[in-house]
Amino acid sequence: MNMLINVPETVVADALRGMAAAHPELSVDVENRVIVRRDAPVAGKVALVSGGGSGHEPLHGGFVGRGMLSAACPGEVFTSPVPDQMVRAAAAVDSGEGVLFVVKNYTGDVLNFDMAAELAEDEGVRVAKVLVNDDVAVSDSTFTAGRRGTGATLFVEKLAGAAADEGAPLERVEAVARQVCGSARSFGVALSACSTPAKGGPTFDLPAGQLELGVGIHGEPGRERRAMMTSREIADYAVDAVLEDLRPDLPVIALVNGAGATPLLELYGFNAEVQRVLTERGVPVARTLVGNYVTSLDMAGCSVTLCQVDEELLRLWDAPVNTAALRWGC
Amino acid sequence: MNMLINVPETVVADALRGMAAAHPELSVDVENRVIVRRDAPVAGKVALVSGGGSGHEPLHGGFVGRGMLSAACPGEVFTSPVPDQMVRAAAAVDSGEGVLFVVKNYTGDVLNFDMAAELAEDEGVRVAKVLVNDDVAVSDSTFTAGRRGTGATLFVEKLAGAAADEGAPLERVEAVARQVCGSARSFGVALSACSTPAKGGPTFDLPAGQLELGVGIHGEPGRERRAMMTSREIADYAVDAVLEDLRPDLPVIALVNGAGATPLLELYGFNAEVQRVLTERGVPVARTLVGNYVTSLDMAGCSVTLCQVDEELLRLWDAPVNTAALRWGC
Repeated sequence: MNMLINVPETVVADALRGMAAAHPELSVDVENRVIVRRDAPVAGKVALVSGGGSGHEPLHGGFVGRGMLSAACPGEVFTSPVPDQMVRAAAAVDSGEGVLFVVKNYTGDVLNFDMAAELAEDEGVRVAKVLVNDDVAVSDSTFTAGRRGTGATLFVEKLAGAAADEGAPLERVEAVARQVCGSARSFGVALSACSTPAKGGPTFDLPAGQLELGVGIHGEPGRERRAMMTSREIADYAVDAVLEDLRPDLPVIALVNGAGATPLLELYGFNAEVQRVLTERGVPVARTLVGNYVTSLDMAGCSVTLCQVDEELLRLWDAPVNTAALRWGC
Repeated sequence: MNMLINVPETVVADALRGMAAAHPELSVDVENRVIVRRDAPVAGKVALVSGGGSGHEPLHGGFVGRGMLSAACPGEVFTSPVPDQMVRAAAAVDSGEGVLFVVKNYTGDVLNFDMAAELAEDEGVRVAKVLVNDDVAVSDSTFTAGRRGTGATLFVEKLAGAAADEGAPLERVEAVARQVCGSARSFGVALSACSTPAKGGPTFDLPAGQLELGVGIHGEPGRERRAMMTSREIADYAVDAVLEDLRPDLPVIALVNGAGATPLLELYGFNAEVQRVLTERGVPVARTLVGNYVTSLDMAGCSVTLCQVDEELLRLWDAPVNTAALRWGC
């Protein structure tokens, strides 16, 4: 597997240097691995901090900016960031209004954000936390107790970020984040394994002509393997898996997300099938986002996240956002 | 090679249906394969139309919207669109101020846009054309007489599109497009072959552990194959290939583009090396764009496009753009 890297040991640092060069609106601390809005702290505004293992770009660094995250803490590839990163990030972005930690449900992330919250509070930062655990595929997984956190992270960061951008207090920003966690569910499918730089090849074996239904974003096993299915069949399976759990009584925002190596042409075609299933199931779609937002390096595949939205959440979705990877209204 | 499709025959139509569902701001004619700004024709504004084979998404459909293209005509995968598509597009977007066709230099595209220009002019539409041929790798290629058209297309569409958005007349919009064509050069590298739906597997053989230097966006042969190189070495080779031809005496905008399957993490790391080379060569960088913009389905690899910009082109770059794939200032 050819990779566009120097050596595995510098992949994350190299990426951060490249991100700094491309995005002067971000302040990137390459040594300490913290990506911060250059204009942080923003007076009177609650700050949002997230982070996790690298390899899921643009999550999280690509979501730092107005209307979304204040800072992101990238760990090594598929490895949790350490508490020191989160404490630095919180100190850099706290305006005195407090900080919300957005934590994907992976054991390392949860432990380290917990420790960071204690340390930051010792330094006088008010911290709230929200745990994202939206992946309906399996309960308990290779790196996780309970459900894994995946595509809903984008919704939490966008919607709670919009509330913070409007000046909502920490309690309200946290409440929005919790509402989104309760309103969003995901299901992912791998058409190929992914390769980490450290391993230099596939991290799991997926036999030719098979797919993994319910895969995790690090290639964790899902519900089952089957012979390759059509886009139509995959959409039926994935959307129904989500709807078995979510049962929306409001319109949804649909995220049709690429795992990394699946062409955008195919993702749009898959979206047509996702919309068909939702129409057949009587679920109205308020907004749709198609693209590579929560990736797994060079994995081929896709995921579907549905987030049901009341009028207020839909308003927050449409609110201005200005980040590297998600931008509108600014 | 597992693909997220139904059958090869419906890949483009499926993608257009999915694009229509995701982007209500676009009017997508699935049957006739034309993607148009919903608000077209815009009174008093010159229109821009482009198109080409599918498989390079988000090019061109993802660049339809305010400040960029008025319409795009997608062909079958890696196959030119037909004149009827372009004539329909021109008729749909012409406000009376004329239409600029942005044509990548591939023989089929050139012939069909030429024929479409004649047909559209017969119907009373004033048409200007600009040919994009920025790929310095080789002269004459599998599908092309002369140099291939690749990453500079994004710059032509953005900068001429911005001029049109400001109300410039057709002659001025065409002049901007020609200036950009003269100011931008590209070089691409494949780390893996790409697979078309029709073939169901790789369209060319790239032995394991080798890369193709100077590859075309359909996998056309480049200058040479070598044993896999580091990100640093690839940046040296690609940037120097561009600079041998461009010799900028003004700052450049750098596009660090992914071929499709290369993770964004790696693209950002590659950007760090591209910036290093440019600094070493004394070339100032005014803006940088990193991401998947002109892709080759599931090819792993990257390309570098440099566009030298005077103050006016830089101003047009920063002007508002509101498309699916490129959006700022709106």
